[in-house]
Parts: sequence; structure tokens; C-alpha cells
Amino acid sequence: MTLDPVLARIDADLEAATDRLLRLLRIPSISTDPAHRADCRAAAEWLVEDLRSIGFENAALRDTPGHPMVTGGMGDGGPHLLFYGHYDVQPADPLELWKAPPFEPSLEETPAGRVIRGRGASDDKGQLMTFVEACRAWVAVHGALPARVSILFEGEEESGSPSLVPFLRDHAEELKADLALICDTGLFDRDTPAITTMLRGLVGEEIVITGPDRDLHSGAYGGPAVNPIKVLARIISALHDDHGRVTLPGFYDGVPEITPELRAQWESLGFDEGAFLGGVGLSHPAGEADRTALEMIWARPTCEVNGISGGYAGAGFKTVLPSQACAKISFRLVGAQDPEKIRDAFRAHVRSMLPPDCSVAFHGHGAAPASVMATDDPAFETARQALSAEWPNPAAFVAPGGSIPIAGYFKTELEMDSMLVGFANDDDLIHSPNEKYDLRSFHKGIRSWARVLAALSERG
Amino acid sequence: MTLDPVLARIDADLEAATDRLLRLLRIPSISTDPAHRADCRAAAEWLVEDLRSIGFENAALRDTPGHPMVTGGMGDGGPHLLFYGHYDVQPADPLELWKAPPFEPSLEETPAGRVIRGRGASDDKGQLMTFVEACRAWVAVHGALPARVSILFEGEEESGSPSLVPFLRDHAEELKADLALICDTGLFDRDTPAITTMLRGLVGEEIVITGPDRDLHSGAYGGPAVNPIKVLARIISALHDDHGRVTLPGFYDGVPEITPELRAQWESLGFDEGAFLGGVGLSHPAGEADRTALEMIWARPTCEVNGISGGYAGAGFKTVLPSQACAKISFRLVGAQDPEKIRDAFRAHVRSMLPPDCSVAFHGHGAAPASVMATDDPAFETARQALSAEWPNPAAFVAPGGSIPIAGYFKTELEMDSMLVGFANDDDLIHSPNEKYDLRSFHKGIRSWARVLAALSERG
Repeated sequence: MTLDPVLARIDADLEAATDRLLRLLRIPSISTDPAHRADCRAAAEWLVEDLRSIGFENAALRDTPGHPMVTGGMGDGGPHLLFYGHYDVQPADPLELWKAPPFEPSLEETPAGRVIRGRGASDDKGQLMTFVEACRAWVAVHGALPARVSILFEGEEESGSPSLVPFLRDHAEELKADLALICDTGLFDRDTPAITTMLRGLVGEEIVITGPDRDLHSGAYGGPAVNPIKVLARIISALHDDHGRVTLPGFYDGVPEITPELRAQWESLGFDEGAFLGGVGLSHPAGEADRTALEMIWARPTCEVNGISGGYAGAGFKTVLPSQACAKISFRLVGAQDPEKIRDAFRAHVRSMLPPDCSVAFHGHGAAPASVMATDDPAFETARQALSAEWPNPAAFVAPGGSIPIAGYFKTELEMDSMLVGFANDDDLIHSPNEKYDLRSFHKGIRSWARVLAALSERG
Repeated sequence: MTLDPVLARIDADLEAATDRLLRLLRIPSISTDPAHRADCRAAAEWLVEDLRSIGFENAALRDTPGHPMVTGGMGDGGPHLLFYGHYDVQPADPLELWKAPPFEPSLEETPAGRVIRGRGASDDKGQLMTFVEACRAWVAVHGALPARVSILFEGEEESGSPSLVPFLRDHAEELKADLALICDTGLFDRDTPAITTMLRGLVGEEIVITGPDRDLHSGAYGGPAVNPIKVLARIISALHDDHGRVTLPGFYDGVPEITPELRAQWESLGFDEGAFLGGVGLSHPAGEADRTALEMIWARPTCEVNGISGGYAGAGFKTVLPSQACAKISFRLVGAQDPEKIRDAFRAHVRSMLPPDCSVAFHGHGAAPASVMATDDPAFETARQALSAEWPNPAAFVAPGGSIPIAGYFKTELEMDSMLVGFANDDDLIHSPNEKYDLRSFHKGIRSWARVLAALSERG
């Protein structure tokens, strides 16, 4: 089965492929918000129909206690590859900052080329569809795929994947393949594709601190009545020292220093710290004082506050002393850091700083260790060469800072290694208003997967 | 003109008076929320009509750049008294904590007696109407008031009174009286009426801290990108030392120690700190380590955080590193503390803790110094005796912790002293869900004003 007619078919079909992606983007499948439960199901159903139209005759929606999985399989020769993506998206707020409604996507001309604008365009619907469209082209041209391919799409990636591990356990035999392919990462830069070799882990914690049993008048009670916002501010403030290091006891246990070889490889990539920060309106790296920005994101653990609320936040002023204050806090983990130990250390820190009249409720949101990929598997070099053939620059092995716990789950639950390849750009505004995906990423992404499938099947 | 038939008339008219108050409470006149602008005007118009129905023929709605004032006057003999109250109310959120909708007030039976439940029942519509109803009874019985009475109702007390000082300046001749009567305070306890002799001042500040120029993915940017929530937490945390004292330089300049005489008088009131804190679910006094709860509220300055927001606060979790974080912070002032100096010191503190990549926007919300009343004026002792005749216990001179800047404005703008008398209870839940006003407070409050008007007019 030859590659060239498949690539030609992809080029000819690009407009139709883009229309299909726009249809998927119109479904507001926000997994974290219970109001969008039916939308998540609708996105899963749309994918099942689309997979069937390609030839995945056994494509199916699989119910879970949360949002459904989508599975399917085709082919029997060559290596067995499991492709993973997620059809759920982040919330779209603040809505007022979007140039157009987040779920009315469109193709937009920009100085840097055409982009597909809308929530999920990059993370992860656009990326997921690069693989689906590559399969469609292979089957359209050759009537078959060059390898045995299984599909697994989940709908809870943006809300901690609570159903994923039980689903992997219950269907291990069906899902275990020779290698998992995951498309939820980015290019190194516009011309340089990337294979991710390390992923940070993630621990999410939501805390609610309660002081008085009701909201009080700050004039009538301020002073003797404990203010939970002030308590929360002290707790958050004490999480870092003056050098930007996390203060939790044992936090850095299991954090490896990067090797001189890896440091040299990273330095050869020519990462531009000033441009990276300047792209989001910043000029001074925050965080650990003795680390470069690239090192902090690729190889260091962090603690961020993702949300805080308490008291009156509306227009004007209200002299309330609130009963409660809340924060959402997350930790990114590297190396052998233990998520449960870090969760325990965080909770102990909060409890130790709680005044006698305050109570705290903890709500855990996911806990996944960091993942280090099996780059000694020759499939990695094969895929790297296939990607290098599609893009202007050779593909790089990288370690972006995000957390994609699925790679860890594939390893622990199915003893299966993962290869992460994606085509997002740094300016895709994922998780932000005005998210977009370059049409070039979509087009060359589809072509990249067509090439990788061919290359991995030749290795056999 | 005799008092007894007036008191009898008040007793006979209580049900009708309560109905009138319920009508006023149904108007959601939330001054701080622009969505309720028309409701504020509707409340003012209702009051104009009600005053006219009593006999204040010149009652009028007076436009300002903000919400309108209501004025009126009647009588020409005796001392000239200016009565002040406010018809605007606090926001009602969180709505889900109300037992019944906040603007559908009703009379409710409770173990402690009947209460009028609804936003503004105590603060300040119910209190304001005690005076209006006392006037209605005097005029109904005697065809006239025993003193010359002017009325001033404002609609911006809960949002910093921006139009008040200009209005006082522009209409000084019309509004200046021998003494101002203000009904926006409480009883000392259920059986002990109170005349307020000191009021704390108030400085409100809203700060918005901006870091990155957009919301970011905390995995892709966490570490090198500054997080404005963490910056805000450090700023708030540094506002107090470990002994609960405010750390702003010069903050305690002009704070007087209370005299041994006043301390002895306060101790004789038998304030129950345990019951006060226990009433709101607390047992340990927070705040300055070396001060009693009563002293902190009556005579010490404080700093409270009234609201905080930033990042994702909805259901579930979102790994966002937000562009902005906001807080609403207020200071209560005593003695000769200078509101503008304290605002400046606060802003300098915030700027000094701002990392290089962060900017801050400040929005001031009111600035009023503390007020100390002219208790050497014999009118205070006259009023104290009149109140003592109505209630089980003699009236006390007190200094509750709230801030009612109007007394300071009357002094500075009109050279007029103020006497603050009110009938609220500590458990009225003002500024909180389920606000109420005891029917007993309303009834005896009306009778109290009828007595005070008589007593002050006899003094002449």
C-alpha cells in the first residue's frame, strides 16, 4: 500500500475534512459542567457515526458512570496501535473575551494564515480529527489501513478522567495494543514537529474554608470574627518561599536533575525565553529563582492557584465578612514524585495553618504521577523520521509542561507504552478565550499521521 | 400636645404600619448594582408619596448624579430636627441561602416573637419607617408635629454615598438643623436601648492585579508565568502581623486609647463575648491579640477582605493560570485616623509587593473618618431618658463597630451634630441572607421616636 495517493487524497479532501471538524466543534461538550452532560453524549454519538462512515463498523458508544467512551477497531495486519484522543473541552468563560461565540466556530484569515477558531479547535477535537482523517484517507484509497488500529476517545480529560482507569481495567484485553498513539500535544515551533518524551503529573485540590456560620457585617464583627479569606491568603502565601520553591515538606522527593546530555539537547533547540514570555505580555520569569523557564516547564514541579473565590465579587462594594472562602490549587509533578504523598502534605499544611474557629473541606480532583516515555523503542525513531519528512525541520524529542495522565494509566493498567505526537502551536490559546487551531496544523497533522501509520506498519 | 394619645394611636395603627413597611421592602432597591437603578428610584418615589400622605406637603424626589434623595419638612415651632435614613439595601446574594425570596417579605412567627423577614427589613427601611410612623401618629392625633422636622433619605448608603456630600453642600441652608437624628443603629440588647456616641470611619479599596495578558494553561506556563492570585495572596497575607495588627506604616497614628471611665462604663454593660461569638458559630476571638472583642469592635481600627476572585470558580476544575485577580478590602477607622493617608499607605503597600510583570488598578469606594458625638449636648440626656421610659432597661451610650459616614458629613459640611438611635438586634442578619426586623423593634421603635420628639420639643 503506497503513501503518495493517500497524501494526495488528504490534500483534495481538506475542505470536507474542515467542515467535519467544524460540525464537531459546534457541540459544547464541556465535561466539567453538569449542565453540558447531554452535549458530551452528543459529541460521542457524532464520533461514533463518523467512525462508522469511514469503515470502523464496530464503532460504539460505551457508557460509564460519567461521560461515555467511544471505541472502534479496524485491520488485522501489522502492528496493533491504539489511538487516544478526547472529545470534551474546557469551559469557555469568560465569554465576554471571545471575539465570536466559542461554539460557533469558523475558518478565519489571519496574518499568519488561516485558523479554525472555537473552543476545542486545538484541545483536542482538531488534534483528534487529524488521526481520524488520516484513517479516512487510507481506507478511501486502499480500502484498508496499513496497520491494525483501535480507537479510544474519552469525554472526561478536562475534568480529571474519573471513569478512565476503571474502563481500562474492565476492557484491558480489548484495549491493550503494541503501542498507544496520543494526539494532545504541540509542535516545538511552527516548523518543527515534536514527540513528547516526558509528561508532568498532576494533583488537583479544591479547598473550602469556613469560619463564621453565616456571612457577617464587617463593621459589626470585623476584628474578633475570623475572616476565611484572610486565612486562605495566608495558606496560599505560605506555599512558596521567597525563592519560588514550594515549601511542603518532602515536595521535592523524587525530583530528578536533568542529565547533561538532555540539557545539551534542549539548549540546541534554541528556545527563546524572551519571546515565550513576551507572547503573553510578560518579561521576567517568575517561579524558582535558579531555573530557566524551559527547565521549569519541562522538568520541574510547580504549584499554581487556578481559582479563588469568597465574599462579594460583584459590581460595587459590600462590607461583608464572609462565612467561606474557596481555592482550586494544582501541583504539576515530575520524576518519581508521589501524587498521594503530595496531596497528604498539602492537606497537612492547610490544617496546620487553620485557626481554631475554622474548618476546611477538601475535594480532590485527579492525581496522576509523571510519565517518562520508552524512547529506546525503535518505533520512536521511525516516527521521528516520518514526521521529519512532512515538516520543514527534523522532529525533536521534547518535554512540554502539561499533564496527560493517560500515558501513565496505559503503562500502569495495560503495560502499554505511549507515543505522544501533536500539532498545536503555543499561540493556540487552549483553555483561554479565542482558542484556535491553524489550518496548517490540521492539514499537515493529517498528512503526518498518514506517514506515521505507513512507517510503523513497514517496521511491522 | 400630649404624648399618650399618640402612643395609643401607634398601638392601634401597628398592622397598617407593618403593611406599609412590607410594601417598601418589596422594592429591590440595591444601590450598588446598576441593574437595580430603576428600583432605587421606585423606592424613593414610594417614600415621597408616603410622606405626602402624612402631611409633608413639600415632600420631593431630588435627582443626583446617582440615586435620588428624598426630602420634606413640616412644622415651625420647637427645635429644628433633621431626620436621616437610607432606602437602599445591600445585595441579597447568595440567594440560595434565603428561606424565602429576599424581596417577598412577610411577617413570620418565631420562638422569639414575630419578625418582618426580607432584605432591608432592619437595614434600613424598617428603622427609617419607625420615624415616619411616629410622625404619622403625631399628625393624626394633633394635626401637627411637636417640633420642626426635616427629612433626608438617601439611596446610596450601601454603595459609598457618592452624591451625599455634594448634595449637602448645594442645599446647606435648607438642610442645616439644630440636631440630626439618624436611625441606622441597634439596641444594646433586646431590653436596652442605645444612643451611639462613636462611629468608625471606613475606607474601601478594590484592587485588580494583572499578570499575563490573557488566561493561560497552567501546565504550559505555570512556573515562569507570574500568577496574580499568588501575588494577591501575599499582599493580603502581609497586611497583618502574627498578633493581628495591621502592618501598614502609620496605620495606628491617631488611634486613641479608651479612657478608664469609658472602659468602666463598658464593663458595666456586661457584654458577653462568648455569647457574641457563639451566636455566629465561633468561640475564639480573632484580631488583635491583646484586645477584648468589645474593644476591637467599638474602639479599634480593622482591616477586612470583603471579597476575592480570580481564575475558575465554577463547578469542577480548570487548570487555568489567570490573567487577573481581584479583592475588595476595607478599613474601619477610629479616632483621628486619616482616611486618605490610610488609602495611600495601602496603595503603597500593594505597589511595593508587586512583581515586575504585574500591574495593579485601584478603585476607591468611599473614605470617611470616624465620628465622635457631642454627648455634652443636653439633648443626649433628654433623649436617653425618653428612651428609658419606653424600654425595660435604661438607655446606654454605646459605640458599635459599623461605619455611618453621614454623621461625619453633617459635622464637616453643615456644622451640625448628630444623635444616632436605632432598634436593630444583633441577630437581625443585616447584610446576610434572611435579614429580619423584630416586630417589637418596629413597634417600640415608633413609640420611642414619638417620645423623643416630645421630649426634645419640651426642651425647646
